[in-house]
Amino acid sequence: MNSKTAELLARRERLLGPNVPTFYENPVHLVRGEGVWLWDADGRRYLDCYNNVPHVGHGHPRVVEAIARQSAILNTHTRYLHEGILDYAERLTGKLGHDLRQIIMVCTGSEANDIALRMAQAVTGKTGYIATDNTYHGNTTAVAHLSTRRPPIGGWPSNIRRVPAPDALTPLGGSIAAQPQAFADNVARAIAELEAAGHGFAGLMLCPIFANEGIVPGVAPGFLDPTVEVIRKAGGLILCDEVQPGFGRVGANWWGHEWLGFVPDVVTMGKPMGNGHPVAAVVARPDVMGAFREAFGYFNTFGGNPVACAAAMAVLDVIEDEDLIANARKMGVSTLEGLHGIDHPLIHDARGAGLFFGIELARDGKPAPDAAGRVVERMREEGILMGRGGREQHILKIRPPMVFDQSHADLLISTLSRVLAEIPA
Amino acid sequence: MNSKTAELLARRERLLGPNVPTFYENPVHLVRGEGVWLWDADGRRYLDCYNNVPHVGHGHPRVVEAIARQSAILNTHTRYLHEGILDYAERLTGKLGHDLRQIIMVCTGSEANDIALRMAQAVTGKTGYIATDNTYHGNTTAVAHLSTRRPPIGGWPSNIRRVPAPDALTPLGGSIAAQPQAFADNVARAIAELEAAGHGFAGLMLCPIFANEGIVPGVAPGFLDPTVEVIRKAGGLILCDEVQPGFGRVGANWWGHEWLGFVPDVVTMGKPMGNGHPVAAVVARPDVMGAFREAFGYFNTFGGNPVACAAAMAVLDVIEDEDLIANARKMGVSTLEGLHGIDHPLIHDARGAGLFFGIELARDGKPAPDAAGRVVERMREEGILMGRGGREQHILKIRPPMVFDQSHADLLISTLSRVLAEIPA
Repeated sequence: MNSKTAELLARRERLLGPNVPTFYENPVHLVRGEGVWLWDADGRRYLDCYNNVPHVGHGHPRVVEAIARQSAILNTHTRYLHEGILDYAERLTGKLGHDLRQIIMVCTGSEANDIALRMAQAVTGKTGYIATDNTYHGNTTAVAHLSTRRPPIGGWPSNIRRVPAPDALTPLGGSIAAQPQAFADNVARAIAELEAAGHGFAGLMLCPIFANEGIVPGVAPGFLDPTVEVIRKAGGLILCDEVQPGFGRVGANWWGHEWLGFVPDVVTMGKPMGNGHPVAAVVARPDVMGAFREAFGYFNTFGGNPVACAAAMAVLDVIEDEDLIANARKMGVSTLEGLHGIDHPLIHDARGAGLFFGIELARDGKPAPDAAGRVVERMREEGILMGRGGREQHILKIRPPMVFDQSHADLLISTLSRVLAEIPA
Repeated sequence: MNSKTAELLARRERLLGPNVPTFYENPVHLVRGEGVWLWDADGRRYLDCYNNVPHVGHGHPRVVEAIARQSAILNTHTRYLHEGILDYAERLTGKLGHDLRQIIMVCTGSEANDIALRMAQAVTGKTGYIATDNTYHGNTTAVAHLSTRRPPIGGWPSNIRRVPAPDALTPLGGSIAAQPQAFADNVARAIAELEAAGHGFAGLMLCPIFANEGIVPGVAPGFLDPTVEVIRKAGGLILCDEVQPGFGRVGANWWGHEWLGFVPDVVTMGKPMGNGHPVAAVVARPDVMGAFREAFGYFNTFGGNPVACAAAMAVLDVIEDEDLIANARKMGVSTLEGLHGIDHPLIHDARGAGLFFGIELARDGKPAPDAAGRVVERMREEGILMGRGGREQHILKIRPPMVFDQSHADLLISTLSRVLAEIPA
C-alpha cells in the first residue's frame, strides 16, 4: 500500500467513520474510467470485471452528453408535466410483457424494492414477506429486514420468513434435480407460518438469477414453476428484483424473469438503469399500481426528473444501437467456455447467465472462501477487478460492463488461469 | 387547459397510473429553467417561488459543468477510494459544530432519514420514535410511518407517537407564549407512552423550522429548549431533518438548528444539496456513527459517488462565491416586509425564516384552504409558481431559489396583492 492510499484510508476513517466497506486489502484509488477500463492514481489500468452499474461502459459519451444537456436545460420534479418521464416510461414498459406497463421512478433499487413490498401489502391486505436467506434487496429499514444476517435491534420482525436459498454444494432436497420442488416446499411452509402468525402472505421477493445466492447451477428455465404455483394458490405477489439481471445482463432476454420463464406481478430495477446516475424504478400491472396508489401517498422529489430520464433513455439507446444484449449472449457463451477450460481442483463449478458468472471454489465439497479471497486479491494485483459472493464468500463473481469483448475475455481467462495455478488445492 | 396538456395528463394516467400528484388544476408543462425562472412549452415565463431543490438557481452553469465534467471522467462507488467524497465530507462537516463530523452519503432525504432512525436505535437500543402530527420526513416504509395520515395496512405501528404540531391558529397550551412548554410536555407524555409500551424511546425527528407545519409563528430561537431538556433526560436522540432549512435557506445560518439554537445528535440533508442531482446525507458525531456502523451493515451503490460529490461541491462553491446566505438573509427581511405590507382580511399572519415564507389565510380564526387554493391557482395564471401547506392546506408556501432578488420580490408582492384583492374575505 502506498502512502497516498494510506492517507485516503485514514481520511475515510476520520470523515466516514468505521466499518465503511472497501474492496481489497490494498484498496484501489480510481481516477478515471472508459468502457471496461478503470485507471488508478498511478496511471495503472484495470480491466473491470465487477461493475454492473456502468452497464454500457464507464463514461459512455452518449449517456454523459444526455446528462449534461438535460442538466443545462431543466431539472425539476414530476408534479409539473414533462415529456421525459412519459417517453421513457413508454419505451421501457414496451420491453415488458404480462401487462406490466405502469411505472414509478425513484432513485435507488432500495427505494424501488421498498415500494414493491408495499404494493404487495396494498393488493393483498397482508403484511408477511418471504425472501431467501442468502440475498440482498437493498438498504432501507424495511428492505434490509429481508437481507440482514444480524438480528435487528428490537428483534427479527415476525412478518418476514427467510427460506433456504438454492445452493450448489448442498442442494435443497439433496440434489440439483430435487431443488426446484424443495424450494417451493419451503416457500409453502413459510406461507403457512406467516398465516398462522396472523400476518398473512403478501409476497415473495426474489432475484430471478439468484445473483447474490451465487448464480446457482440448476436455476434454469422452469426452476421457479413449482414455487409460482404455491404463491398463486396462496394469493401472494411475486416481486421480481431485476436490479442485477435486468437490461439484458442475462443475454438471452431483457429481463431475468423472461429467461427463467415466469410472470411476476411487480418488477424492480436499479443499478444499470442510468449507467451510474441514480435512477431506479418499479413497474407493475395497472391493478397493482392502482391498489398501491390508492393505499399509499407516494411522491419522490428526484425520481423521474428530466435528467434521470435523459440518462436512462440514453442507456436504452446505447443498449440497442450497440446491440449489447446480443453481445452479452455471445460473450456469455464464449467467456463461460473459457472459464470451463480452466482446470484446477478448487473449481467445483463455473456457471453463468449472460455476462454474469460465478465460479464456485470448494475443497472436499466444502466452500473455500480463503482461496476465493486470495484469487480476488491476486487478480487485483494483476490488473483485473472482480469480486466474490455466496454464503461463505467462496464464489468468484464476474460481472463486467456489457461492452466486454473477446480480447477482454481472453485477458480475464489467461490471468485467472495463471493466478489459480499459484493457489494450492 | 390546452390539448397538449390534456394529452400529457392522459399519458401520465396511462403510464404512471392513478393518483400521481400534480400541481395546479391546469398543470404546468415545463421545458426550460434558468435562475429563478421557468418556461413552459408555449414560451410563457414563470417566476419560481416554490422550488427549493434548484437551490442556487435552475440550471446553474457551475453545477451543470461539474456534473458533466465528472460524469465523463469517472462515476463509481465508495468501495473504491476516491478523493471526491472525502473533500466534500471535509468541507461540509466544517460547516457544522457540536462534533457533527462524520457522514454517510445517500441519494435522497428519505434514505437519509431512514438511516437517522436506525442511528437512534443503535445508540439507545430502543425502537420508539416521536414526530409531529403534521410533518413529512420522506417516503420509505419506515420514514413514511412518521408522516402518513392514512392508517397503514396492518395498523399504525405502535412504536411511533405523533405529538401535536405547533400551530398558529390554535397554539398548544392556548397561546403562542405557552407553546414551547406545551410542546415539550406532549413529547414527555409520548416518551412515557413509548416506555410503557415496551419500545423505549430512541429519538425525536423534527424539522427545525417546522416547515411542513407551516413555519409556525413563535418558533424562534429558544423554542425547543424545554423539549431538548425532556429528550436529554430520557436519553433519546434528536434527529434534525435539515432537508428544507439547510444550506442557508434560513438566511441567518447554514442550518435551521443553529438558528433555533439547539444541538442535534444527527443531522440529515437532501433536496438542495446537489441542486437537483440526487444527493443526500446523514451527519453525526463519531460515537453515533460508530454505534450505527457497528449495529448495521450499510452500503449505498450511488451514494457519495464522484458525480454526486462534484455536484454537491459545486453547490457549496456557488453558495459561498455568490454570497447566497447573505442574500437569503437580506431578501428574507425585505420580502417579509413586502408581504407584511399586503393588507387583506384573510391574512392571519405572514412569517418567514430567511427565504422560506408562510402566509396563513383564515376566516373568523378558522383555516381558509379554499382561499389559499384559489390564490395559488390565480398566481400560476399570473405567472408565479408557489404552493401551500399546513394542516388544512391553508398556508401559502413561498420558497424560491436562493438567487431571488429584489426585482423578483417586487413582482411576487405586487402580483400577490393584486390576486388577493380579487378574493372575497
